[in-house]
Amino acid sequence: MNAGISALFTDFYSLTMAQGYWKNKMSGRAVFEVFFRHQPSGGGFSVFAGLETLLQTLKNFSFSKEDLDYLSSLNYFEDAFLDYLIDFRFSGDLFAMDEGTIIFPQEPVIRVDSNLIEAQILEGLILNTINFQSLIATKTARVVLASNNGFVMEFGLRRAQGPDGALSASRAAFIGGASGTSNVLAGKMFTIPVLGTMAHSWVLSFPDEEEAFRAYAALYPDKTIFLIDTYDTLKSGIHNAIKAGRELAGKGKNFGVRLDSGDIHYLSVEVRRILNEAGFPNATITVSNDLDEYIVDTLTKAGAPINIWGVGTRMVTGGNEAAFSGVYKLAAKEEEGNLIPTMKFSDNPEKTTNPGIKQVWRIKDEKGLAVADIMALDDLENPDIPEKGKQHVFWHPQADYRHFYHTILNDASAEALLKKRISKGEIISETLFLPEIQQKVREGLECFDHSYKRILNPHIYKISVTERLRTLKLDLIKTFDYNVKKI
Amino acid sequence: MNAGISALFTDFYSLTMAQGYWKNKMSGRAVFEVFFRHQPSGGGFSVFAGLETLLQTLKNFSFSKEDLDYLSSLNYFEDAFLDYLIDFRFSGDLFAMDEGTIIFPQEPVIRVDSNLIEAQILEGLILNTINFQSLIATKTARVVLASNNGFVMEFGLRRAQGPDGALSASRAAFIGGASGTSNVLAGKMFTIPVLGTMAHSWVLSFPDEEEAFRAYAALYPDKTIFLIDTYDTLKSGIHNAIKAGRELAGKGKNFGVRLDSGDIHYLSVEVRRILNEAGFPNATITVSNDLDEYIVDTLTKAGAPINIWGVGTRMVTGGNEAAFSGVYKLAAKEEEGNLIPTMKFSDNPEKTTNPGIKQVWRIKDEKGLAVADIMALDDLENPDIPEKGKQHVFWHPQADYRHFYHTILNDASAEALLKKRISKGEIISETLFLPEIQQKVREGLECFDHSYKRILNPHIYKISVTERLRTLKLDLIKTFDYNVKKI
Repeated sequence: MNAGISALFTDFYSLTMAQGYWKNKMSGRAVFEVFFRHQPSGGGFSVFAGLETLLQTLKNFSFSKEDLDYLSSLNYFEDAFLDYLIDFRFSGDLFAMDEGTIIFPQEPVIRVDSNLIEAQILEGLILNTINFQSLIATKTARVVLASNNGFVMEFGLRRAQGPDGALSASRAAFIGGASGTSNVLAGKMFTIPVLGTMAHSWVLSFPDEEEAFRAYAALYPDKTIFLIDTYDTLKSGIHNAIKAGRELAGKGKNFGVRLDSGDIHYLSVEVRRILNEAGFPNATITVSNDLDEYIVDTLTKAGAPINIWGVGTRMVTGGNEAAFSGVYKLAAKEEEGNLIPTMKFSDNPEKTTNPGIKQVWRIKDEKGLAVADIMALDDLENPDIPEKGKQHVFWHPQADYRHFYHTILNDASAEALLKKRISKGEIISETLFLPEIQQKVREGLECFDHSYKRILNPHIYKISVTERLRTLKLDLIKTFDYNVKKI
Repeated sequence: MNAGISALFTDFYSLTMAQGYWKNKMSGRAVFEVFFRHQPSGGGFSVFAGLETLLQTLKNFSFSKEDLDYLSSLNYFEDAFLDYLIDFRFSGDLFAMDEGTIIFPQEPVIRVDSNLIEAQILEGLILNTINFQSLIATKTARVVLASNNGFVMEFGLRRAQGPDGALSASRAAFIGGASGTSNVLAGKMFTIPVLGTMAHSWVLSFPDEEEAFRAYAALYPDKTIFLIDTYDTLKSGIHNAIKAGRELAGKGKNFGVRLDSGDIHYLSVEVRRILNEAGFPNATITVSNDLDEYIVDTLTKAGAPINIWGVGTRMVTGGNEAAFSGVYKLAAKEEEGNLIPTMKFSDNPEKTTNPGIKQVWRIKDEKGLAVADIMALDDLENPDIPEKGKQHVFWHPQADYRHFYHTILNDASAEALLKKRISKGEIISETLFLPEIQQKVREGLECFDHSYKRILNPHIYKISVTERLRTLKLDLIKTFDYNVKKI
């Protein structure tokens, strides 16, 4: 879908600044990091998604002749700069966590190590891709958790944010744990199972409900789910479903019903009872109607007898939180041949960045349960590695007075999460299949205590910085304070 | 962007049902209507957008050989049905309101009059396109109203829902009244002005803030907006901006500053004062930082001295409401050569549809102010037109006991809003340029009393049905009640 997108898919200021860097001969090395600021929907974790889409898109991210003519028409850019853009390709290194990793605020999930001009032009594409897919993978993982790892169908096409908003969402929802999608094109593009039931228009297209149900059962005897609320679920729909279902049962086939309006809990209990009394204890109940993780959680906790969840709008748009808070910030820049750590201060403490090039270490205990993530300086000559068998002090990234001591036992683990994916413009990492990424999410979530996965008011997982990173940050703040006093 | 999208961009059930219609030889005429259920974000109006995108996409909406091979691989479809799909093209009629029309819940904004199979397959594409663009055009119109018709820049690329989520959003935001976009590709595709300021990375890429500002001013002396919060807005940023701005002033150029963190009201007042005292009363103040119509409304009502609004995430995703509630429902179907009105009852009264093929009449008073929208039966042989000079009774579409009497004076107007756009598969309507659609929104909003445009708790505009439509609905309900008693 995005594989052929033009490098014009960038913010205008990226191009005006790029021209500035170019004119000022500022094409030295620059390191940008992507991190996010807070968990969406008040949750306790997020799912990193979109990496493979990003890598494939970057391969062809360039300017066509027509694109450069357009830029020229804006009367902002010099011909010599536009000539420079003819050969624009990403030629740097890109590090990222594995797609499907469980992620937390503040920690870098991607690092771009490139020349300043390229890195600036990539900002929009990287954020757009990662923000959206991570939002939807996270939302879906929450829905699936709320359903007790049930069967969740993604039904979002009709209310998704544009065609790609639907297609990328189907991909991300599958990563987050959906069992399939209603979107046939997404099924083809990403090899995701395609699923569906029937529409009200099917029922209305026949003289009556019973005839509509019989016609569907005759066609799809192995996979019949009757939509029973077109007229009235309890007075009409369930009874006609049982009539048509009895014929299927005569052929040794099972069937199901779908509820799409009314009170889902009440109706699922009533419909289950009616089905059981009619001798169909195995007939399935599918529910839909503006579901999200909160509603699913309420229904599962109340013991509603639901087999399949059809979740659309709120899952493919993020629902109550429609954007992921990922940002792209300069962590270090080259000055006279040396890489100098940089830091944005800002007027909001929560927008202050952590300086320098960083690695993220996930510390697990000897049972494999995650204890904390540690941000450490990733300076190749003098690495800042949380070693095993040693006691460390780890600091809260903002609250100066909060820290904890931790000894990483020898049979525990400390894993570096950022790995090189692109080296000098070439993809070097292996492509994972979507089911493998989905599996990674499932296994990743198993390493976190249930309190971090609570739908409402979860426990906050520890993200900390090493002593060295903290010292660097405090030093930069001192220098800045000194400079401000001079103004 | 979407022009070449495959007809696989549909819900799986559309294809399984289409095969059912095909096998049962149910390829008679069917009329579907698109309407929406409630105003997003608690507003009083919505803006209809996405029509031109939809018309252009429909032109090429078909199945490739590869698509049909994929469908065949699913083991759901007969070869003869897949052969039928080879020639699938929309061959029917499509009616729609003008793009940019101010719209209200319940009233049809699009009508598809086609054979049942085609109409079913189109459902997903139509809803996806119209729902998303109408959501964003509506949100933007609200932001622009809140800014007192100020200068709103759309900055959403990095947090939009995927690449098309950004591009379609830029188009829709422009329709809703944005003055331009930061998205360069959207600028090229839709001929929208592209705009931007500078990033924190620009400031951090220089040894200090003052040097960063001077370098930018040297490059873009006519359009310099300094981002002043990288270190500290009041202690550092504004003073460095004034230093660099003084040089610009020496060359007869104006400049501006952008606030992107901290308390926007407090900072805008302080920065305005400092700029004025320094002799720059014309220097502009741009603000950004997770703005939406509620925050903009608060700031304008408080008299914050803001010239330009940079609005991103919440405008291009819908913010607190990320989906538009448009649905696609069967209004009539052919039976033995006659068109029969259909109606979905449902277990939720608000999901009950209005039966039959409808036209929407916008009634304005003699001063051109909108009074009410009337849904009437659009039966060509016996039209249900609200005539002038006559007293009519118009009914609430759901609440049976609510109605009002209205005489349409001879110098008032009653305009039919649904017009034919596609006739037998061919586009027959003229293509409007985006600025014309934007103008239509602006003029459309002027016809509504300010109480309907209030950001919070607006007055509810009257949407009513004619006596004939009401009678039809009540008759169908009676028939249904009779049928249910028989079960």
